[in-house]
Amino acid sequence: MKGICFDGKKAVYREDLPKPTPGEGESLVRVLMAAVCNTDKEILRGYRPDFKGVMGHEFVGVAEESSDAAIAGKRVVGELNAACGKCIYCRTGRPTHCSGRRVLGMHDKDGCFAEYMTIDTSLLHPVPEELPTEKAIYTEPLAAAFEIMTQVSLGQDKNIAVLGDGRLAYCVVQALRAEGHSVTVAGKHPEKLELFRPFAEVTLEREKEGYEVVIEATGSPSGILQALEMVRKKGTVVLKSTYAGEVSLPLSQVAVNEISIVGSRCGPFVPALNALASGKALFPEITLFAPKEYEQAFADTGFKAGFRFS
Amino acid sequence: MKGICFDGKKAVYREDLPKPTPGEGESLVRVLMAAVCNTDKEILRGYRPDFKGVMGHEFVGVAEESSDAAIAGKRVVGELNAACGKCIYCRTGRPTHCSGRRVLGMHDKDGCFAEYMTIDTSLLHPVPEELPTEKAIYTEPLAAAFEIMTQVSLGQDKNIAVLGDGRLAYCVVQALRAEGHSVTVAGKHPEKLELFRPFAEVTLEREKEGYEVVIEATGSPSGILQALEMVRKKGTVVLKSTYAGEVSLPLSQVAVNEISIVGSRCGPFVPALNALASGKALFPEITLFAPKEYEQAFADTGFKAGFRFS
Repeated sequence: MKGICFDGKKAVYREDLPKPTPGEGESLVRVLMAAVCNTDKEILRGYRPDFKGVMGHEFVGVAEESSDAAIAGKRVVGELNAACGKCIYCRTGRPTHCSGRRVLGMHDKDGCFAEYMTIDTSLLHPVPEELPTEKAIYTEPLAAAFEIMTQVSLGQDKNIAVLGDGRLAYCVVQALRAEGHSVTVAGKHPEKLELFRPFAEVTLEREKEGYEVVIEATGSPSGILQALEMVRKKGTVVLKSTYAGEVSLPLSQVAVNEISIVGSRCGPFVPALNALASGKALFPEITLFAPKEYEQAFADTGFKAGFRFS
Repeated sequence: MKGICFDGKKAVYREDLPKPTPGEGESLVRVLMAAVCNTDKEILRGYRPDFKGVMGHEFVGVAEESSDAAIAGKRVVGELNAACGKCIYCRTGRPTHCSGRRVLGMHDKDGCFAEYMTIDTSLLHPVPEELPTEKAIYTEPLAAAFEIMTQVSLGQDKNIAVLGDGRLAYCVVQALRAEGHSVTVAGKHPEKLELFRPFAEVTLEREKEGYEVVIEATGSPSGILQALEMVRKKGTVVLKSTYAGEVSLPLSQVAVNEISIVGSRCGPFVPALNALASGKALFPEITLFAPKEYEQAFADTGFKAGFRFS
């Protein structure tokens, strides 16, 4: 079968990959569409030196073989962390933080940039019939944005700012908007902010102590410092950006002003699917490539690039 | 009257200070006992270059003149932040973060290292009759430790570590213990840890990912890095230490592991007074000096030094 692999140093397109066989508790999924995440590009830059195998973790497919009747034969999306079920994190309701987890296309598990993939059946969610594949492909990044609402109490009356004007910020705005929250997007690229204008207040300013909650989604190390300036005392900064390296922080300011900094990563799929199916969350069209055009896909600078596999 | 002032550069003992006159909404307090806080020593090192006046903010006194019948003539303790009542923080229940606040012995308001002081009546709390002055003197630092419980949900089943073995850590342990929480104190000085042994598990180890909540009370910039190693994924680090300078942090680890960092400062006086009065919070004896022995008091390396004023 066709697929895009990471060989430890670079991406490689192959047509001779063996069709995988599902293990115990796994389903076989025929991949319809897969999307490129920034993490995939980070892997090409050396983020996961130990990983070799099929890349990718954002997909929509058809569960061709599954022991779960609610899944078998249906279109599905899937979570990326396969948990061990035994460690302290699995036993206390934190499977996405499982110490022994295998991660699709990142760690110890082939991903979704191929015609077929296998995945723990418990990680799969059926896609509502009315939700087109081109929209369902946004489930995973939107779910990560919904994680914020499981961590921080966002009253309807709170001033909420999203810092950043890229894809990460966009997902956050769509999740918050789907839950009825008004947000201000503070960006630095007027042309990128246009995309947010239908859904949020947009600004090039960073109002000092202007917000109860600031969601840092710049993807850049300087974002946290801006967020700490913008947040009110006793307010919350949600940290969505990940990047290599460390950041020097004025921590006494955090203590004295009683600010909370909350790290936030993968999130719940069901509210994301619901928001997409109901049209409460809206996304630009994905730009699709053939698998062998992987270099173009990885280099694409549009909102979202992906692959059509069947 | 006698008092200890900061002249902008150093502490000065004076006997010619005028007895202060209470302003509108203020009470006149005759100071019985005042205690030296680490912040007072920071002021001597230049922490508050704009401040000049009577030092000190931890005290027990008698409200000799007060329009509040519940206070007048009684022994009292008092909070340090006098709020404006008008700013965004005052209007939203965060008076200790008031933008225009005056702070006892630190900013725009004479403190308690004198025979008499004036203070906003609303900041005063009567001391229960059964609580001796020598114990009530610990109310303010203990209240700051009680702040943690207003910010973080500490289930009885959570593994809680206090990092540090100094006075700050001790206050935290007493507050947590008064509320029925079991804690482990991770320190680095065996002789200091002995003081904690009656109240907590003590250890010289820093168990990696061993705790749901780590309260960083080392007073040192390296504490946060140790706390981030000790806390479990999706766990909470409470930041109690304040110090000059910045700290370089692996923030991606905070995001990916979904850790919360919660800054924590001044806290509620009533639970602190109750814990002291009921004997649920216990402290070593304060070492008392005469006001003119202020140099010895500031140099004292015991658990707590203070002044007896009358």
